[in-house]
Amino acid sequence: MIRRANPTDFLRVWEMFKEVIDQKVYFSYDHTTTREQIEKSWINEENLVYVAEIEGEIAGAYIVKANQPGHGAHIANAAYMVDSRFRNYGLGRKLGKHSLQAAKAAGFRAMQYNMVISTNENAVHLWQSLGFEIIGTVPEAFYHFEKGYVDAHIMYRKL
Amino acid sequence: MIRRANPTDFLRVWEMFKEVIDQKVYFSYDHTTTREQIEKSWINEENLVYVAEIEGEIAGAYIVKANQPGHGAHIANAAYMVDSRFRNYGLGRKLGKHSLQAAKAAGFRAMQYNMVISTNENAVHLWQSLGFEIIGTVPEAFYHFEKGYVDAHIMYRKL
Repeated sequence: MIRRANPTDFLRVWEMFKEVIDQKVYFSYDHTTTREQIEKSWINEENLVYVAEIEGEIAGAYIVKANQPGHGAHIANAAYMVDSRFRNYGLGRKLGKHSLQAAKAAGFRAMQYNMVISTNENAVHLWQSLGFEIIGTVPEAFYHFEKGYVDAHIMYRKL
Repeated sequence: MIRRANPTDFLRVWEMFKEVIDQKVYFSYDHTTTREQIEKSWINEENLVYVAEIEGEIAGAYIVKANQPGHGAHIANAAYMVDSRFRNYGLGRKLGKHSLQAAKAAGFRAMQYNMVISTNENAVHLWQSLGFEIIGTVPEAFYHFEKGYVDAHIMYRKL
């Protein structure tokens, strides 16, 4: 069950965001990132925050927001989190599909990811299977804690 | 003469930023953008803010900051402003060159622009002449007040 988050869910969404940060292979945010910073940029009532529940527990979340201000605000951007206890439920795909519908319903014309880390092959394949294309690759955009500098893809699809 | 901006220059830098916003063809920020918003994201003491003086007047400026947080913070991003009274002095090129040196000196490994609007051909050519490549093009990323939705390029060069 995927539903709009209430402000009372925001702590739980932050905990999942933080878990994903600490895994160091999905997001650029590093260990110094504070809840306050993420609440300014992602987890807030201006953005579309959704949570997925499995057996009454919040197991994942996504957040959709404009990728650019003003004259570029018709393209969405999003972040996705799956609690590591709920991997292998296909939740990433469900959140992804749901977010495309939610973004379209909110009036966005396209979805753009700025930083899909090339070593995160599951994510690259998931997004391709949902209709995204790699429209560019930024050389050495991400510092991977094991692999050093690795490329990151910019992925895009119309809604 | 291009020099590091003092906090006392920030009002003047905002005025130029605002002038560029109001031209509607260079930045995504629209007419609702406030000085406070731009001081949070661009014109502040955490970023590298430089101004160009011509005959004792501030005629242009640029700002360099990290394009991503944490594990992506080794790539810079920048914004450039030229006061419209000082066009045709080659100031854009001088600011561009200077910003590449300043970014490199600050330890950045590359410079990335996320949104070079395709209809702004002078900018595309300027950056190409300074060694940038178009590494991707976002379809219809910018709403141009006369031309409607137009593409925007992502441009990149190593430092």
